[in-house]
Amino acid sequence: MSKRTILAYSGGLDTSVVLHWLAERGHQVIAYLANVGQEEDFDAAAQRAREIGALDVRVLDLREELVRDFVFPAIQGSAVYEGRYLLGTALARPLIALHQVRLAHQLDAPFVSHGATGKGNDQVRFELAYYALDPQIQVVAPWKDREFLDRFQGRGDLLEYAARHRIPVTATIDKPHSEDENLVHTSHEAGVLEDPGREPEPAVFSRSVSPQEAPDRETRISIEFRDGLPTRVENHNTGEGVEGALPIFLCLNELGRANAIGRVDMVENRFVGIKSRGIYETPGATILHIAHRDIEGIAMDREVLRLRNMLSPKLAELIYSGFWFSPEMDFLQAAIRSSQEVVDGVVQLSLYKGNVTVLARESPSSLYDADLASMDIAGGFDQADAEGFIRVHATRLKAHHAILQHRGKDWAGS
Amino acid sequence: MSKRTILAYSGGLDTSVVLHWLAERGHQVIAYLANVGQEEDFDAAAQRAREIGALDVRVLDLREELVRDFVFPAIQGSAVYEGRYLLGTALARPLIALHQVRLAHQLDAPFVSHGATGKGNDQVRFELAYYALDPQIQVVAPWKDREFLDRFQGRGDLLEYAARHRIPVTATIDKPHSEDENLVHTSHEAGVLEDPGREPEPAVFSRSVSPQEAPDRETRISIEFRDGLPTRVENHNTGEGVEGALPIFLCLNELGRANAIGRVDMVENRFVGIKSRGIYETPGATILHIAHRDIEGIAMDREVLRLRNMLSPKLAELIYSGFWFSPEMDFLQAAIRSSQEVVDGVVQLSLYKGNVTVLARESPSSLYDADLASMDIAGGFDQADAEGFIRVHATRLKAHHAILQHRGKDWAGS
Amino acid sequence: MSKRTILAYSGGLDTSVVLHWLAERGHQVIAYLANVGQEEDFDAAAQRAREIGALDVRVLDLREELVRDFVFPAIQGSAVYEGRYLLGTALARPLIALHQVRLAHQLDAPFVSHGATGKGNDQVRFELAYYALDPQIQVVAPWKDREFLDRFQGRGDLLEYAARHRIPVTATIDKPHSEDENLVHTSHEAGVLEDPGREPEPAVFSRSVSPQEAPDRETRISIEFRDGLPTRVENHNTGEGVEGALPIFLCLNELGRANAIGRVDMVENRFVGIKSRGIYETPGATILHIAHRDIEGIAMDREVLRLRNMLSPKLAELIYSGFWFSPEMDFLQAAIRSSQEVVDGVVQLSLYKGNVTVLARESPSSLYDADLASMDIAGGFDQADAEGFIRVHATRLKAHHAILQHRGKDWAGS
Amino acid sequence: MSKRTILAYSGGLDTSVVLHWLAERGHQVIAYLANVGQEEDFDAAAQRAREIGALDVRVLDLREELVRDFVFPAIQGSAVYEGRYLLGTALARPLIALHQVRLAHQLDAPFVSHGATGKGNDQVRFELAYYALDPQIQVVAPWKDREFLDRFQGRGDLLEYAARHRIPVTATIDKPHSEDENLVHTSHEAGVLEDPGREPEPAVFSRSVSPQEAPDRETRISIEFRDGLPTRVENHNTGEGVEGALPIFLCLNELGRANAIGRVDMVENRFVGIKSRGIYETPGATILHIAHRDIEGIAMDREVLRLRNMLSPKLAELIYSGFWFSPEMDFLQAAIRSSQEVVDGVVQLSLYKGNVTVLARESPSSLYDADLASMDIAGGFDQADAEGFIRVHATRLKAHHAILQHRGKDWAGS
Repeated sequence: MSKRTILAYSGGLDTSVVLHWLAERGHQVIAYLANVGQEEDFDAAAQRAREIGALDVRVLDLREELVRDFVFPAIQGSAVYEGRYLLGTALARPLIALHQVRLAHQLDAPFVSHGATGKGNDQVRFELAYYALDPQIQVVAPWKDREFLDRFQGRGDLLEYAARHRIPVTATIDKPHSEDENLVHTSHEAGVLEDPGREPEPAVFSRSVSPQEAPDRETRISIEFRDGLPTRVENHNTGEGVEGALPIFLCLNELGRANAIGRVDMVENRFVGIKSRGIYETPGATILHIAHRDIEGIAMDREVLRLRNMLSPKLAELIYSGFWFSPEMDFLQAAIRSSQEVVDGVVQLSLYKGNVTVLARESPSSLYDADLASMDIAGGFDQADAEGFIRVHATRLKAHHAILQHRGKDWAGS
Repeated sequence: MSKRTILAYSGGLDTSVVLHWLAERGHQVIAYLANVGQEEDFDAAAQRAREIGALDVRVLDLREELVRDFVFPAIQGSAVYEGRYLLGTALARPLIALHQVRLAHQLDAPFVSHGATGKGNDQVRFELAYYALDPQIQVVAPWKDREFLDRFQGRGDLLEYAARHRIPVTATIDKPHSEDENLVHTSHEAGVLEDPGREPEPAVFSRSVSPQEAPDRETRISIEFRDGLPTRVENHNTGEGVEGALPIFLCLNELGRANAIGRVDMVENRFVGIKSRGIYETPGATILHIAHRDIEGIAMDREVLRLRNMLSPKLAELIYSGFWFSPEMDFLQAAIRSSQEVVDGVVQLSLYKGNVTVLARESPSSLYDADLASMDIAGGFDQADAEGFIRVHATRLKAHHAILQHRGKDWAGS
Repeated sequence: MSKRTILAYSGGLDTSVVLHWLAERGHQVIAYLANVGQEEDFDAAAQRAREIGALDVRVLDLREELVRDFVFPAIQGSAVYEGRYLLGTALARPLIALHQVRLAHQLDAPFVSHGATGKGNDQVRFELAYYALDPQIQVVAPWKDREFLDRFQGRGDLLEYAARHRIPVTATIDKPHSEDENLVHTSHEAGVLEDPGREPEPAVFSRSVSPQEAPDRETRISIEFRDGLPTRVENHNTGEGVEGALPIFLCLNELGRANAIGRVDMVENRFVGIKSRGIYETPGATILHIAHRDIEGIAMDREVLRLRNMLSPKLAELIYSGFWFSPEMDFLQAAIRSSQEVVDGVVQLSLYKGNVTVLARESPSSLYDADLASMDIAGGFDQADAEGFIRVHATRLKAHHAILQHRGKDWAGS
Repeated sequence: MSKRTILAYSGGLDTSVVLHWLAERGHQVIAYLANVGQEEDFDAAAQRAREIGALDVRVLDLREELVRDFVFPAIQGSAVYEGRYLLGTALARPLIALHQVRLAHQLDAPFVSHGATGKGNDQVRFELAYYALDPQIQVVAPWKDREFLDRFQGRGDLLEYAARHRIPVTATIDKPHSEDENLVHTSHEAGVLEDPGREPEPAVFSRSVSPQEAPDRETRISIEFRDGLPTRVENHNTGEGVEGALPIFLCLNELGRANAIGRVDMVENRFVGIKSRGIYETPGATILHIAHRDIEGIAMDREVLRLRNMLSPKLAELIYSGFWFSPEMDFLQAAIRSSQEVVDGVVQLSLYKGNVTVLARESPSSLYDADLASMDIAGGFDQADAEGFIRVHATRLKAHHAILQHRGKDWAGS
């Protein structure tokens, strides 16, 4: 049986060691570099993979697809994990896995591999996607392999192995924490950040300025939505406008970065049942999330909003836990898409030293502005109707009062 | 039958006119002034009520009770209406109604009255509480009375009536919007704010400085929680500490005000089915909400958090819509209280120009810090276990893949 | 302004009186008879309407539409109100209202009217549908009109009025309770049934035999589903097969009636906040609901089932409370439809003296029967994987144990 | 280290082999026989365990505890898995595990063991409970052990091993399916039942007569509830009454058995992601569930009922999946208990050939019977109020109509 293996290769120390380790164990490794917007010299990384022993290297630019097919649906669904995390890493993993499986099919490789650890979420996101996309696929996950785990007990072991096998790495021993970066966010965790009672050093943040460093002048922008999707961003300070999924997202990322938007420090619950402290910098998606929630406020019916909001935490959990390719995700997305049909309009925002302030909004889907007039045509809202509305709603409460009294309880006392 | 009537009297133009109107129609009005933390000269207001024709005046200081019995349970339940509104007005209404009904019982008054309009939420909050607390009570709601509505079609009519009947008012014709103020927040709506597409003037805000006006130096504080309730606030800039429900809340209000915390501008859905633009300034509760959510993140079990979070929107709806005194509220509060038993710890925060930034947190209810050690004693978290975990979770997805293929669909294509 | 009025006319005492009453007050009444499957001589009823004073009469056969557009979507969504009521009346009301509003538009009638009382659900279902379909429409609801209510305080008053105005009615004074009948069910309530502690007389039931009266031989049938919709029923006792929405439903109704299927006696909560005892006979829909739930059990993914089941009570509430034509109903139906794409297969059932017993089922959407084989091809389900699965799931519980111990609690004691 | 091991021993073939296997591998096995109501000669089984090699045997009668602490709380919470399964096996497992861990502590045994397979739910229920109750405990699960799995690939291997090692067993090769029996139910699965498209033979059922075999005379009973718990059962045919948790449950079991109550045949979703066909006979709990739901219908407030019903599926999932001892279960139970405070009253039932028919019910917690009178005292339910109630509820729908029209859609057409 062929041992051809598609390895999700990042160019960093871990996957470089994994690449070498797999090659030594007889795998024909094809290094697959997914460009999801991280800062990386892909040519250099590809060259490195070949030097370490990759049979072949593939680099795919997935940025547009990431924004259009993963980030925007999450924004439409108001997907926020445990109230704060906008799912930057979690959104990119299934996309990376999707193209990895496609490569495996194209190149007739029975194996896929990744460098995610056995305690984290990313292993689950990769592997659930692999299995969902191809149940026959063979997964090689060194960080769950007893031999590999015994061999590499710390960063020092990786560096030592790299040095011994002349693996070209730029990493040094004293990396204080680990990071994941893509178009959506940069995350920081582990190492010195592991203690949730210890405040992060300013140097931890790499993707945004701090509120203190941000400009003294606010930036005013507007975002236009159609069907819950952003279709245009205008910077009112410069007069410039941007359209198209990727350009819009890149523009918001830059505006967010410059104005200290989107930093989060939280203790979250991993899918494997461990609590973990994560620090996230999510500039553009934070702006988008706030603007989208605001346009929903004016354009969406109250009861649709409540039902959709009931599904949002579930959507976030599925994304977080790696169930992007699943029947329940299809179900949720069908529901959420149907809720977005009227989510049209423009939101005015101010960005200033960490604040995303909604200033105003307009929507053609709202009767809001024409409210009184329109309502009057329709017979209007008659304030006297409220009496019956309240009295009927009180029926149940009156009955309960009698039951409470019967049981010797009385809220009002006397 | 006695026409003794307890009127929730604010001291302002509307309820002053209502007081006079009721007195003219034969009601013996007892003016009831609830001190829920609004800026008001209660002596002067009481004097005014007597001059207008109140038989008697009662002033009650409800501030401590507001914080302890209404605001803190809402914080424990993470009650946020439609993702943004912290329910400042909605929390005070049932408390005001509770003491109004008690006064009615003490003073043998068959009637209660209020000055809330027939299009808003407050009429519902008052009246549902009245009926829940005393099903026999008679409610006089002039703003739903046809004669009253015909007589008073605008602010001008109220002023004209006040002038004609020598009702002492300080109001002038050009009040650009309406406000409600209490310990929790100041809300602004209606008038020029009614157009959601129009940015509010800076002068609208009365309860907090703007981010631009806030100090250049951040304020560092810590909040200690026990059973999900704040028990101590420390200001690390000054070294001062505060304890006790009301002092803690007043302290956070002042810190929030000074650092531009808690402004919200949103279009919300009223219980009567109308959309409405509201602007809120909620300094202290905003800080508290953020800190409480963070301590829950470290102290609360994941699945308890998810179940509680499922109930939070419902809790917010009930508070918003006036169902504080209801069997379903008792049910929710029993559930939520049980979730707070382990919510202990300290959160470190930075307040700076509109930002409430969580810096660090510690909790005795978390295994977090002792995590690895403790887990190791218990046999630990074995990374190799993750393989089985993922493979079993993938079983269902593999089956679904076969069904998709059977139906001619294939996510991965080839 | 024209006083042309479309009256939902049933042919019975109440709406006959209403017809006359409206005509006396200057309305030009068009009597609208909706055939939703009730036992009725529509020609005779139409003749009666003309005699009472109807300007015109329209009879519409809505049976096919009722089954296809209302009953089947409810079955797909597993809509059961408060765990038991299959919503027979509630499903027909919006359909009747829809065609009533269409008639109003066609005949240029500004008014619609109905004979439902002011304490029940049907008034809400009619009127919410009217307003949703045409906000300008004028609703005449005599049973909420003070003058009408004062005039007619009991059944006797109606009969007396009918006699005085020579309204031809077959009703007599001693009708012991009220009924509503359509294709889906016959409901019984009020009158002697109002006391929930009193067992109903056998004579109450009109739509089905009792279990005691049912045949001693079971009837074996199979129902075939496609996309969650029944496409064929086979009676294995007779060998006959039926296809098409209405024929299938009629066939199941007859089978249910003969085998004592679908009786329910319950106390339910009306939308207006009153508790009410209702007795229902729902033969065909009961069989269909049970069969559909069973085919979902084999064909639907577990997590999709859970999410859909989360929405089912909400769907039932909306139908019950009259929100068929609403944005939230559109949202729910979009979600539910997407869940039904794989709900294909055949269910074998036995009908016997009140029991609907599922005997067996098959579905092409299930990997079930090919389970082991297919799974083996895919690497199978390795029992050893379960160890990791359980151990990872236990991580959180182990942590909680430490917290409990810390707090002096210990489930296992010693 | 001691190899003392508490084995959950059933007396059957599987655990007899496991006992021997463990003993051969150096474990000092204490055979623990939990009496949860199964038909078993415990003395004979204990004797057998000693013969096979058990160091010691402990028999515990857990029946009362099962009913009081596990079954009744599930009834109070309306816990039904996937709409049909009343969780008979799932409720007994954590209780068995609880006493097993206590025995381990008392007898200083570091190991616990069970005979559940690696593809089912019971392994999860046992082991999650073990770990939750004692994170340090060592679990020996032969059916997930590679060596054991390789050795025993079918029932024949077990019998052959038993014969070779003179293990006294009564089992024979041709057991057509597997069963689990306790006080709550008897379940049947696997073997010839595995094919969900194949109707079960009548001989499968062992716990109840078929509807055809049941008596021709109905049995009339009443069940009294207090705080949602059954406190008395009366058999109106015989005039006998029963009180106390266990006697009540045994009585209902016998009544159910004799009247063909509680058979279910379904395809369910196991926690490990496999679909499985199960057949259940649950006589007493079925009657209790139906009666409890009915008394809730009259005694419980509508909104409390809805909230509790939102939690019931979650409760069922937790029980099914083995999370009885978990923080989320504590949370759910606190909520559910608070919902049961008013669930008092008496339900009249008829049991007849598979049917549990509710005939009538009364509750002191309901205003139902005193409804009109009481309401009238309180000002009553004024039908005219319904107009305002409906019109205000329609506000939102009218606004939506305008939006639909704006988008070129119109439900009513013309």
